[in-house]
Amino acid sequence: MNKWLIAAAVATSFAAHADEGMWQPYQLPAMADVLKAKGLEIDAKSISKLTEFPMNAVISLGGCTASFVSPKGLVVTNHHCAYGSAQYNSTPENNILRDGFLAKSFKQELPAAPGSRVYVTESVTNVTDKVKKDTDKLSGDAFYKAIEAADKKLVADCEQDDGYRCQVYSFHGGLEYYLVKQLEIRDVRLVYNPALSVGKYGGDVDNWMWPRHTGDFSFYRAYVNKNGKPADYATDNVPYEPKSFLKVSAKGVSDGDFVMVAGYPGRTNRYRTADEVENQFENYYPAAKELREKVISLIKTVAPAGSDARIKYESTLAGLANYAKNFTSMIEFYGKSTMLQERRATEAALTQWINADSARQQQYGKVLAELDSLVKKGEQHQARDLLLGYLYYATMPATAENLYRLAHEKQLPDMQREPGFQERDMTRFVNGLERIDRRYAPAVAKAIAFELLSRYAQLPASEHLAALDNFFGLKNGVDATKLEQQLDKMFSETKLGDHAVRLAWMDKSVADFNTSNDPMIQFAVAMYDTREQLRNEQKQLTGDLMKVRPQYMEAIIAYNRAQGKPVYADANSSLRVTYGNVKGYSPKDGMFAVPFTTLEGITQKDTGVEPFDAPKAELKLIKDKQYGDLYVKSLDSVPVNFLSTVDTTGGNSGSPTMNGRAELVGLLFDGVYESIIGDWNYDDNSNRSIHLDSRYMLWVMKYVDHADNLLDEMVIVK
Amino acid sequence: MNKWLIAAAVATSFAAHADEGMWQPYQLPAMADVLKAKGLEIDAKSISKLTEFPMNAVISLGGCTASFVSPKGLVVTNHHCAYGSAQYNSTPENNILRDGFLAKSFKQELPAAPGSRVYVTESVTNVTDKVKKDTDKLSGDAFYKAIEAADKKLVADCEQDDGYRCQVYSFHGGLEYYLVKQLEIRDVRLVYNPALSVGKYGGDVDNWMWPRHTGDFSFYRAYVNKNGKPADYATDNVPYEPKSFLKVSAKGVSDGDFVMVAGYPGRTNRYRTADEVENQFENYYPAAKELREKVISLIKTVAPAGSDARIKYESTLAGLANYAKNFTSMIEFYGKSTMLQERRATEAALTQWINADSARQQQYGKVLAELDSLVKKGEQHQARDLLLGYLYYATMPATAENLYRLAHEKQLPDMQREPGFQERDMTRFVNGLERIDRRYAPAVAKAIAFELLSRYAQLPASEHLAALDNFFGLKNGVDATKLEQQLDKMFSETKLGDHAVRLAWMDKSVADFNTSNDPMIQFAVAMYDTREQLRNEQKQLTGDLMKVRPQYMEAIIAYNRAQGKPVYADANSSLRVTYGNVKGYSPKDGMFAVPFTTLEGITQKDTGVEPFDAPKAELKLIKDKQYGDLYVKSLDSVPVNFLSTVDTTGGNSGSPTMNGRAELVGLLFDGVYESIIGDWNYDDNSNRSIHLDSRYMLWVMKYVDHADNLLDEMVIVK
Repeated sequence: MNKWLIAAAVATSFAAHADEGMWQPYQLPAMADVLKAKGLEIDAKSISKLTEFPMNAVISLGGCTASFVSPKGLVVTNHHCAYGSAQYNSTPENNILRDGFLAKSFKQELPAAPGSRVYVTESVTNVTDKVKKDTDKLSGDAFYKAIEAADKKLVADCEQDDGYRCQVYSFHGGLEYYLVKQLEIRDVRLVYNPALSVGKYGGDVDNWMWPRHTGDFSFYRAYVNKNGKPADYATDNVPYEPKSFLKVSAKGVSDGDFVMVAGYPGRTNRYRTADEVENQFENYYPAAKELREKVISLIKTVAPAGSDARIKYESTLAGLANYAKNFTSMIEFYGKSTMLQERRATEAALTQWINADSARQQQYGKVLAELDSLVKKGEQHQARDLLLGYLYYATMPATAENLYRLAHEKQLPDMQREPGFQERDMTRFVNGLERIDRRYAPAVAKAIAFELLSRYAQLPASEHLAALDNFFGLKNGVDATKLEQQLDKMFSETKLGDHAVRLAWMDKSVADFNTSNDPMIQFAVAMYDTREQLRNEQKQLTGDLMKVRPQYMEAIIAYNRAQGKPVYADANSSLRVTYGNVKGYSPKDGMFAVPFTTLEGITQKDTGVEPFDAPKAELKLIKDKQYGDLYVKSLDSVPVNFLSTVDTTGGNSGSPTMNGRAELVGLLFDGVYESIIGDWNYDDNSNRSIHLDSRYMLWVMKYVDHADNLLDEMVIVK
Repeated sequence: MNKWLIAAAVATSFAAHADEGMWQPYQLPAMADVLKAKGLEIDAKSISKLTEFPMNAVISLGGCTASFVSPKGLVVTNHHCAYGSAQYNSTPENNILRDGFLAKSFKQELPAAPGSRVYVTESVTNVTDKVKKDTDKLSGDAFYKAIEAADKKLVADCEQDDGYRCQVYSFHGGLEYYLVKQLEIRDVRLVYNPALSVGKYGGDVDNWMWPRHTGDFSFYRAYVNKNGKPADYATDNVPYEPKSFLKVSAKGVSDGDFVMVAGYPGRTNRYRTADEVENQFENYYPAAKELREKVISLIKTVAPAGSDARIKYESTLAGLANYAKNFTSMIEFYGKSTMLQERRATEAALTQWINADSARQQQYGKVLAELDSLVKKGEQHQARDLLLGYLYYATMPATAENLYRLAHEKQLPDMQREPGFQERDMTRFVNGLERIDRRYAPAVAKAIAFELLSRYAQLPASEHLAALDNFFGLKNGVDATKLEQQLDKMFSETKLGDHAVRLAWMDKSVADFNTSNDPMIQFAVAMYDTREQLRNEQKQLTGDLMKVRPQYMEAIIAYNRAQGKPVYADANSSLRVTYGNVKGYSPKDGMFAVPFTTLEGITQKDTGVEPFDAPKAELKLIKDKQYGDLYVKSLDSVPVNFLSTVDTTGGNSGSPTMNGRAELVGLLFDGVYESIIGDWNYDDNSNRSIHLDSRYMLWVMKYVDHADNLLDEMVIVK
């Protein structure tokens, strides 16, 4: 392989394709020329400044992204991001999730679901030196703990500032650390959501699919106290006044137009090694898909459609099915791709590049082998870890274990506790315990536990855990009747099903747990030492990985820098910017997905039966061609959703899609089925994000829901 | 409604849309300007002459179309049109249907399946005056019989010419009659068929679907005796030398290019009344679809996959499923369309146009009402007729009835016999009796008969037939056990399952039948008088319709002529020409079907499992991008199938698709799913025909199958 070929091979994998890249805002000024050529009209530098327009209008809801669209703290996000709040405020008599809701005045706005937050990022500081200080000679567990301690210290210091939430994010697997400081607004209210049959049109059938016709938008408002500070819900709180907000475009975009998306993408795996790719797609995904489908079928059997138990598991089922579909796509497109071969070729080329220079060889020569070895170690108990991980779906065992762990952690000073068990985490902890009421039925949970433990019992002896074997008698396989009886007893006798009991255990001591006769608590106690040991082993491995992976990333970055190419970090739920163009794609030979859908597509899909049951009023407007001032001549209709090449993933939901002037032209809400594998490998030909078109949002607001008060509040530009 | 509106309304339904129209060749010279503007390079007049190029190269196989592509009688048609011949020549040891077949020399060519024919149309003569002579005052049964007698006379006279097959075709429901004279070549041989996994790639899954990747082509050769006359198969026969043949284009077509198709479309219903449309789509299709699906499920239950019986019913199942899918599409797209309202509006407009002129009113004023009344009469026993019609799938009852009818008919001079029972029909009659061996299993047939008779028994008393009731005891509903026993006896005791016995009954007398103790023959005898009565009632009605419908068509033609617009007749299996352009379409909002598929699409679809199991050699060629000289730069591949706007239907299969110079650029082989309803209503937006691309055919011949001898024999133009 000659030098040119090496360069080409590396370029195909580590360097960004045309519109690939989830860029940290600070990286954008260096790319100003490219952005300008693509169509950015505002200064690229302005996007890098988090406290200036437009970035200070982009906010996180924790798991979703949103943006301010008025000077009075009006927030637009996806319907599916505000779903829980509409559900929370719904009653059988006034089902606002189903029928939609519009507050005609501030007073009518409803409290969002408990735990709802608006996070306004105010600063992102590179704290790598502070985090890694004096860790050079550490490794494994010690390294892990040193990093964790530094993290916690930085967070605690940062959160001294009242009303803020801080977090340290690791980039490139630990090569860099950034401290993110966010204003945490706790009084969030539901302002407007369209009917379910608009906001979730197409439902799970259309999830990840194109053509799409989903009106995936809802509005919140952020409230603060009279002093402008974050506060708990109170009637005399006032709307938060953001430093800036986005104007909403009624002109929208056309095929080929520049678009950019700012948001909080969750997780990608673009720089994983070939071995990791192979294991994930050939072992993990197939096993996890099968397990998910099994759990889905168990739930559907034990909680048949129409039963009370089923209602409690609808949300769990949706989550399970969502990723079963995700994994199915991953496996399908991996099978059709040459991804693994390319990844191997790239690694070979990188290795050759490293070995071509003795200084480089000195620095990076052994890194890949070390990384591969650690990765292999981490995969050793994958089958068992998968089963024990899914035991989470049996709810109560995990709840008991978490509570017992809390009792242990509480013996320590706050700063020494594990993340998730510090005082700052207690609100979320309580929310988690409360949620169980709406999402748990003992018969279902028991059936899931039975399935998982039966599978565990069939694992080879090397994968068995003595504590688990002893508790359930699983050492030499499973006695189905006995296991059934024991689980029966556990799930029927435990008092953890009682809301108040669960919360009360939060304040109990380790001794209280140790002497409890609640069989679920006894399970937690019996497992604790083993779990601690597993967690420590995990820390040891993670610590080693946190040392080695950054070196591997450093090699990649060095190589790219040699070519003058920037490298973006894998998504890690921190604020990123991605740009691209409105563009269709070919989902298969002989077909082309055009970049816009129109109102007429709703009528085409509509069956009158959920999820294809658009409101009658909307269907009539479409039939009568009442496009109003949102009419687009080239489409002879109003656009509903559109496709673009921007590089996004889960967590980006609700992100503002902006044109070159940073006007809101849409909301990112999904990716196409063919792009799911994009989390591992961006492909120019098939990576497409799906956006709600701002014109459809405005059309629904104006003609279907008559949300004139909000239209007046926003600044709409033509 | 003002005049302009009337014109517009009529124009949308009776006049041809852009590329709508299955034109009789004689109509083309009048459309020369349009054809030239569209892209026809040869003289439109030449297409109207059946004995000149290119029309004398277009031939019928009876049910399919084909064309000569060499001076030595080489014939190209669809793979599915030569399927039976490949099947006929296959053995477990030498499965040429599965593996493909290529005769490397004339000597290796194999006899086609029994009954295979090549029909070369030599003349089409307007015989309306002769057929209708002295029928002015006749109606009903008398009119029907007069027309039938005239038909038979014309055919008999025409067939005096040895080696010819003649037929009178009715156009516009009997407004015009044409005598078609065809050379009937009886020695047809199989020359080349690609592997099943090329020729039927996508199978029933892809049937009627786009994107498509089917190599739907095979080659026959026509043989005649040494004197150049049609003759039965004989080793010393010689290849037929057609007067002309089509050159094959290696250049092919591009998006937007002009194409035309000459062939034998079977049946369309574009001029049916609104009442007929309503009944067909709201009553007939739903009932027939349900019945087909029931029969399919019965067959699958009684003849489970893998059973010997199942093998015998595969072809029947394919036929049943094919039209179940067809009807499903019809019902689906009818539901989405405003076809019925448009048809009603058109009729209202036509009526108004007729009434606007007293001469017109005099001539056509009552025609629609008369037609509607006759149509209603014809639908009266539709539910019963459907059930009795499907009794055909029970094989033996219909066979016995046909044989008994033959015995009756044979008492008459040949010219007085019913069509289908004349001497000229006996070869086909024998072929039909022989085919039963490969397509009949008593248990399956019995189950079908049981289902249909049980359903019949539940019809209201007005629909019952005394003879049928008496034979099976069905007057007051069904006694399932008794019916089961009686059918058991009939199907087990009948000797008609024996090939020789069936053929022997062809020569038996009516008396032989009347005294037979074969229970199936007894059924035929018991039913005969009733059947005769029903046939006579049908003739009466058909005779009346043959008087009235032509008047209705005359009104439509007169109206269109007033606007200077030509009218084409509904398809009737006679030779037609249709033209259009290579063009994609939007199957649904947000998607566009591009007009070409490529080799890469085969790899995308391939699962290695039938029907997506392309030959390994082909997949390797595609993987290695071995496009050879069939490479098309704009597609960066070789095109496989393409879409066009030409107006075709079943029977057109195998038709040559020609460019403006009448070079073969493809073979018509299917229509898209959305265009099935086109048999009733052509829609510019969704009516698309699917063609095999000549470049894919040449690529497979050259690189996959190495059919160099045929490539050398044909004239290939670039």
